[in-house]
Amino acid sequence: MPEAAAALVDPVLERVDATLDEALGRLMALLRIPSISTDPAHAADVDAAADWMVADLAALGLTAAKHPTTGHPMVVAKGGSGSGLHVLFYGHYDVQPVDPLELWHRPPFDPAIEETPAGRVIRARGASDDKGQLMTFVEACRAWIGVHGALPLRLTVFLEGEEESGSPSLVPFLKANADALRADLALICDTGMFDPSTPAITTMLRGLVGDEVTIRAASRDLHSGLYGGMAANPIRVLARILADLHDDTGRVTLPGFYDGVPELPEAVAAQWRTLGFETARFLGPVGLSEPAGEAGRSPLEMIWSRPTCEVNGIAGGYAGAGFKTVLPAEARAKVSFRLVGTQDPARVREAFRAHVRDRLPADCTVEFAPHGASPASVMDISHPAFEAARQALSDEWPRPAAFIGGGARSRWRGISRPCWGWIRC
Amino acid sequence: MPEAAAALVDPVLERVDATLDEALGRLMALLRIPSISTDPAHAADVDAAADWMVADLAALGLTAAKHPTTGHPMVVAKGGSGSGLHVLFYGHYDVQPVDPLELWHRPPFDPAIEETPAGRVIRARGASDDKGQLMTFVEACRAWIGVHGALPLRLTVFLEGEEESGSPSLVPFLKANADALRADLALICDTGMFDPSTPAITTMLRGLVGDEVTIRAASRDLHSGLYGGMAANPIRVLARILADLHDDTGRVTLPGFYDGVPELPEAVAAQWRTLGFETARFLGPVGLSEPAGEAGRSPLEMIWSRPTCEVNGIAGGYAGAGFKTVLPAEARAKVSFRLVGTQDPARVREAFRAHVRDRLPADCTVEFAPHGASPASVMDISHPAFEAARQALSDEWPRPAAFIGGGARSRWRGISRPCWGWIRC
Repeated sequence: MPEAAAALVDPVLERVDATLDEALGRLMALLRIPSISTDPAHAADVDAAADWMVADLAALGLTAAKHPTTGHPMVVAKGGSGSGLHVLFYGHYDVQPVDPLELWHRPPFDPAIEETPAGRVIRARGASDDKGQLMTFVEACRAWIGVHGALPLRLTVFLEGEEESGSPSLVPFLKANADALRADLALICDTGMFDPSTPAITTMLRGLVGDEVTIRAASRDLHSGLYGGMAANPIRVLARILADLHDDTGRVTLPGFYDGVPELPEAVAAQWRTLGFETARFLGPVGLSEPAGEAGRSPLEMIWSRPTCEVNGIAGGYAGAGFKTVLPAEARAKVSFRLVGTQDPARVREAFRAHVRDRLPADCTVEFAPHGASPASVMDISHPAFEAARQALSDEWPRPAAFIGGGARSRWRGISRPCWGWIRC
Repeated sequence: MPEAAAALVDPVLERVDATLDEALGRLMALLRIPSISTDPAHAADVDAAADWMVADLAALGLTAAKHPTTGHPMVVAKGGSGSGLHVLFYGHYDVQPVDPLELWHRPPFDPAIEETPAGRVIRARGASDDKGQLMTFVEACRAWIGVHGALPLRLTVFLEGEEESGSPSLVPFLKANADALRADLALICDTGMFDPSTPAITTMLRGLVGDEVTIRAASRDLHSGLYGGMAANPIRVLARILADLHDDTGRVTLPGFYDGVPELPEAVAAQWRTLGFETARFLGPVGLSEPAGEAGRSPLEMIWSRPTCEVNGIAGGYAGAGFKTVLPAEARAKVSFRLVGTQDPARVREAFRAHVRDRLPADCTVEFAPHGASPASVMDISHPAFEAARQALSDEWPRPAAFIGGGARSRWRGISRPCWGWIRC
């Protein structure tokens, strides 16, 4: 860290250490609120968590308010001043359900610090998703304000209470409040570490295109004893269509599919090689041993930076107990594509549909149902905030922070966002 | 018909015509018994139908008895004498359920003769399956005995009451009573006409091998955002396996699959060509227009004399409403093969399983569950009974009778049987 920065930051870090017990107390208080957003029985608890956040942010001197939506409320707080960087911080104060309760060895809303083989952890629902992350940021602001009297930048804190239930109000709220939420940089602290020693900043997230395809042939299910061998079988047609989506090397065969797929920059590739990713540790726990993706690609490329095509569901004919020699009238599959770089979701969907139509034999018809379309998010990590964040995280953890990819689709379509995460206190 | 035969048969046919009303009355009486074998509420009715048959067969002078099974009873009657041909006649006195009742325009067990565009028909449950067929044979015997005083051959009538509920007692009963049921020739009159003007004798029935295949990869369902691109996907593996079962011409690719598949004898092929089979009339009613089987084969070959491979059911991952980007732990399919000629069910099953195992990538396992295995039945139509039966049927119908194939599997494994059928009175 440059000396001038250290002079500003070091006393803040000292204050964080000195006030750790009080900070933990506040996090524990928030963790005690059972803000399960999917369960209507907990609606009042979700609201109470929003109120708790508003009160705590107001205590920092921020202008904080709860904003109603058709679902759970949004919390927006603003602080700082000047013409410098305007940062938006995103987090969520809701948590997942806790069933099955018998798998918890302590009540999920009675938080405690426990010693584990991996170190000390806070055990409570929401500790690592996302109350721990968001309070880390809030406590950093509190310590800074405590030492320096004011924030060094303009800040918007934006917290939702529906992240664990599909964020139905998020995009409408963002659109309706675009001006109030505009910022130079957004921190989304709802991600993970690379491993327990290595903090991470997610700089790329794959996009997603989902499509459901239904192949129909006869107007009703047929008896294969009567029609077998003569009538088109939609399961066979669908199997051929799905099998043709990949070649023998695991590449997707759709024409133009790899348009906009960048090669990984060597700097990033080099950093990834230092991460010591172990295939066996990743796949072993789920009963697998060998990367099954594109030939010639590293495992991290397969899950972070390469596009994919997967079949997520398939159904047709009689699949229950026993056997029926039916020739089904229809068969259907759900297919999804993870997108990277500048791959165009609309073009990928159209290429998939053309692939299906091109393979449709006589007497067969096809129906498609779209399920989501979001492009990949790729951060421009040349912005100085990235390296600053990486250095800050590296200073506090055993191993240097990494810029990593993320396999999952983001709900923040089209919004540029660096992401990082802490999962331990 | 040779003159000597005509001298014997003509007075019998005259008697049939003269006593048609009484014969119809007996059939109507049998049709009034709601002998629905799948419905326990109708067990007494099924039993009553068996008693009715025993009484009617005894009235002919046959030695008739009801034989208990663990399900519904068998009816066995014996008559005739001498050292000539011993014929076994098979039929069933049970019927299918009648739901949905609202699709009947008259009570299903209140039979009536109706005029239709296709001619006069008897409208009642069981009229064409199988009470009409079996009473036609019984009435023929009654007329013969009435004219000549005795049957011209040894006869065993064998009727079951479980045909519409899977015939669970049939094979055990046949095995336990093999000596009593042994015959030179068996007539199974539970088949159909080729068309309303063309009677038919089914001389070949395809066999069946069913197998269920389950492909497993990861030990649990995975999130495709995290694992997609790296973890094996059982649906993709299964789609490839199923797609590879046929080549571009519709032939099954399993090595040795066509061993034992005979080319259709030219005499039979020539007869089939005269049947005037119309693809549009066969496929049109079920919404299809083009034969989808092996290239270069006629439609009748596809459904009667060529072996097939069909996928009857498939399931994997999430196929409900909406979308889940799951990488499933398993996928499964039910696959069946219709066999002809001397194809060996055990070898076909083993070739299929080898086909699957050969395509199993790393980390995938497979489990198979067998569902039935029966070889094809192919009659040796050089036996004079075939041509005699064909001539007899041809004499009575607008068009000559045909030797036809049948697509459906038979429960009468390994028993040689000519089959014919009448469906109109």
